[in-house]
Amino acid sequence: MNGFIGEFFGTMVLILLGAGTGAGLNLNKSYAKGSSWLFVCTSWGLAVTMGVYVAGALGSDGHLNPAVTIPFALFGLFPWSHVLPYLAGQFLGAFVGAAIVILQFAPHFKASKGEAEGNTVGIFATRPAIKSPFYNFISETVATFGFVFVLLNLGNFTQGLKPFIVGTLILVIGTGLGTTTGFAINPARDWGPRLAYTILPVPNGGSGEWWYAWVPMCGPLLGGTIAAAIKVAL
Amino acid sequence: MNGFIGEFFGTMVLILLGAGTGAGLNLNKSYAKGSSWLFVCTSWGLAVTMGVYVAGALGSDGHLNPAVTIPFALFGLFPWSHVLPYLAGQFLGAFVGAAIVILQFAPHFKASKGEAEGNTVGIFATRPAIKSPFYNFISETVATFGFVFVLLNLGNFTQGLKPFIVGTLILVIGTGLGTTTGFAINPARDWGPRLAYTILPVPNGGSGEWWYAWVPMCGPLLGGTIAAAIKVAL
Amino acid sequence: MNGFIGEFFGTMVLILLGAGTGAGLNLNKSYAKGSSWLFVCTSWGLAVTMGVYVAGALGSDGHLNPAVTIPFALFGLFPWSHVLPYLAGQFLGAFVGAAIVILQFAPHFKASKGEAEGNTVGIFATRPAIKSPFYNFISETVATFGFVFVLLNLGNFTQGLKPFIVGTLILVIGTGLGTTTGFAINPARDWGPRLAYTILPVPNGGSGEWWYAWVPMCGPLLGGTIAAAIKVAL
Amino acid sequence: MNGFIGEFFGTMVLILLGAGTGAGLNLNKSYAKGSSWLFVCTSWGLAVTMGVYVAGALGSDGHLNPAVTIPFALFGLFPWSHVLPYLAGQFLGAFVGAAIVILQFAPHFKASKGEAEGNTVGIFATRPAIKSPFYNFISETVATFGFVFVLLNLGNFTQGLKPFIVGTLILVIGTGLGTTTGFAINPARDWGPRLAYTILPVPNGGSGEWWYAWVPMCGPLLGGTIAAAIKVAL
Repeated sequence: MNGFIGEFFGTMVLILLGAGTGAGLNLNKSYAKGSSWLFVCTSWGLAVTMGVYVAGALGSDGHLNPAVTIPFALFGLFPWSHVLPYLAGQFLGAFVGAAIVILQFAPHFKASKGEAEGNTVGIFATRPAIKSPFYNFISETVATFGFVFVLLNLGNFTQGLKPFIVGTLILVIGTGLGTTTGFAINPARDWGPRLAYTILPVPNGGSGEWWYAWVPMCGPLLGGTIAAAIKVAL
Repeated sequence: MNGFIGEFFGTMVLILLGAGTGAGLNLNKSYAKGSSWLFVCTSWGLAVTMGVYVAGALGSDGHLNPAVTIPFALFGLFPWSHVLPYLAGQFLGAFVGAAIVILQFAPHFKASKGEAEGNTVGIFATRPAIKSPFYNFISETVATFGFVFVLLNLGNFTQGLKPFIVGTLILVIGTGLGTTTGFAINPARDWGPRLAYTILPVPNGGSGEWWYAWVPMCGPLLGGTIAAAIKVAL
Repeated sequence: MNGFIGEFFGTMVLILLGAGTGAGLNLNKSYAKGSSWLFVCTSWGLAVTMGVYVAGALGSDGHLNPAVTIPFALFGLFPWSHVLPYLAGQFLGAFVGAAIVILQFAPHFKASKGEAEGNTVGIFATRPAIKSPFYNFISETVATFGFVFVLLNLGNFTQGLKPFIVGTLILVIGTGLGTTTGFAINPARDWGPRLAYTILPVPNGGSGEWWYAWVPMCGPLLGGTIAAAIKVAL
Repeated sequence: MNGFIGEFFGTMVLILLGAGTGAGLNLNKSYAKGSSWLFVCTSWGLAVTMGVYVAGALGSDGHLNPAVTIPFALFGLFPWSHVLPYLAGQFLGAFVGAAIVILQFAPHFKASKGEAEGNTVGIFATRPAIKSPFYNFISETVATFGFVFVLLNLGNFTQGLKPFIVGTLILVIGTGLGTTTGFAINPARDWGPRLAYTILPVPNGGSGEWWYAWVPMCGPLLGGTIAAAIKVAL
């Protein structure tokens, strides 16, 4: 399967834990309602750690992210023949992880009715703190550049305790560069759950805000490409 | 003893530190009264880390959890002959750990009198954020599935620094999927302390809320079984 | 010197960072004034980590704590001939670390004048949340038992990344069992800085509260002894 | 290049993530506005971790800090011939990292207009909690002594998981000793971004406060020198 299985389950775990964090943060009566940004970044970081462990154990390289897979392929760091199964696993795994979160938090979605709470898309997809397409795109590009550039200097990141280091990298990308757009830094992490939110029956759900979706798609791909280009040039 | 000693002391340490966290969070005049969910999950995570180190050093496989032991046995990952001593060690260790917490916090239990504070069962046993037996059961099933599925992909988790990774796994299960039911994900972690709370003389104690206890028993066992089934099938 | 140098500098670093945390938490105009208990425990945990690295590199076993050294000697886990230099290094290092903290925070001590803030002994020495000599003694005994019992199951804790694990152990002892008495769990950590606070010129300083000092001396020694006895018996 | 490349990119990553944290903490509408000191120290700690990984992979010793490089050279722990390229990489990398943060947060700088918010120099450069040149100098000296003294006892800190330990060291230096002056402990970390803030067009920018800049230059150099002297003497 050329890594499909690993990427599917790894990304599923990542989104199950990550979008679950968003649900716990935003939905009424959750035990973590209104938690801090450090909570958010710690949790997303460890969600990636666990996804990488799962993906690595199931035979993939633990990318979980098209903004890793495609730039790596562009610069000869990853075989093109594996790109399609990887991307399929990433988007599909993200969709399934998000679907389970909807089930897991169904009573909390029901308890989160009303004007301000009605649109719960932010649990699944990223939203900018200040709407500014140009700067939002810059922001995702820079954050993903930072993530992929460091990742490329970590060595084999699926082995030993390196998946934990990848998690701390996500944590600090989130605290350092993610406070502007919510650090998608991964098209699959944004589009898979956004699609799930759009087409699945989410209690009190709202718009999928697809007008913004180009940013977490294009910014990460550009940022990852710049990172890989610099690393290869050095 | 086929692992009884390791599971007993490991689970005792887990509950001593974990239920102690709950006491510090909920009881009056504690230095950590009203702390954050990140505090709760960090502490329970490291409580498991320390329990696994203790159990591993004392000769068991560091399960500390019937929702690990039984599914592992069901799918041939653990010998049936060890299941009973493991389960005995887990439930007994959890009971003793909880008993010590009652002693440790006795003046704080006495200082936590009154209507809202009277029922301190939540220090020892899990309670749902929204009462909904069906969804609570789903929630414990999903959270335990996530926990056991990742655990099965971590390799030998009692060696080296892996017990720390298990702790971070508990942390992120708690932040990502534990905000609905308080993540028992372990029947011994819930029933042992619940029993201690029920039969021991807890100052200002209340009901053991056994009507809910089937959820943290059955959900984790189902979730762990699904996880082991998928892992074995892959 | 039989480990005096290592214990001296290791404990100095531990108290420099740990008592510094207490100062940052309690003194006016500090950037961390009023921080959370998770902040306190994380910082004390890593203070121990760094102390153990320093002690280990300078040739001692990284005890930094009479409640480790004496019980280890009692049960044959440590040579009696090294006990005195270890204890001397621990208490003296703690005193010097505290003295530097007084210098480091001098303007903040000056800015912390007044009734409630006048007694800043809690920066240096532990204080019970509820005054109850019997239960405070129990509490320090139990917390130190937990600490030393897990420590005895970590293997050689000065090597590789184990000092980090020791730090996370301190963290979880603090969150799980330290919310009643402030987890001295170490007579040198309490008496050394308490003496420094008493005899050195601390701006707006108050009583050293020596009436309580027997608790963080006797509780930890008893708790450590119980832990070593059980470990040796198993 | 004698390590210029490694120090440049390592310090760039450090400041990109670290100053980004400051921006997220201070600027209006950021998702982390008003976060805790634990957030700040965790993020700066991991920023250093990632900088050390990058620097180590690109061939430098991962100093990222003149208060490491110069004292190491003074005591024969580092060749003088490499000092200039290291320092150049450190200051230049810090400048570039800060420049990217200005771009990344441009809309947030624009949204942070007004009296109290107008001076955003604290995002880039350190400021004392209490203005007292003598004690501020002491404070930076002590904090850097603590940092470099522990660092010298960590062994080769660019290998394996040691960069993570260096990050936790920064964390605890920040929580334990950084609450007085904001822990520059590194002249390049302070002067590079301070210069960027001064000469680049920062929306609603203010004074670079160069009157204070001698403190984060001289204190760290003295503190690092004392640490290296003691380590070499032992």
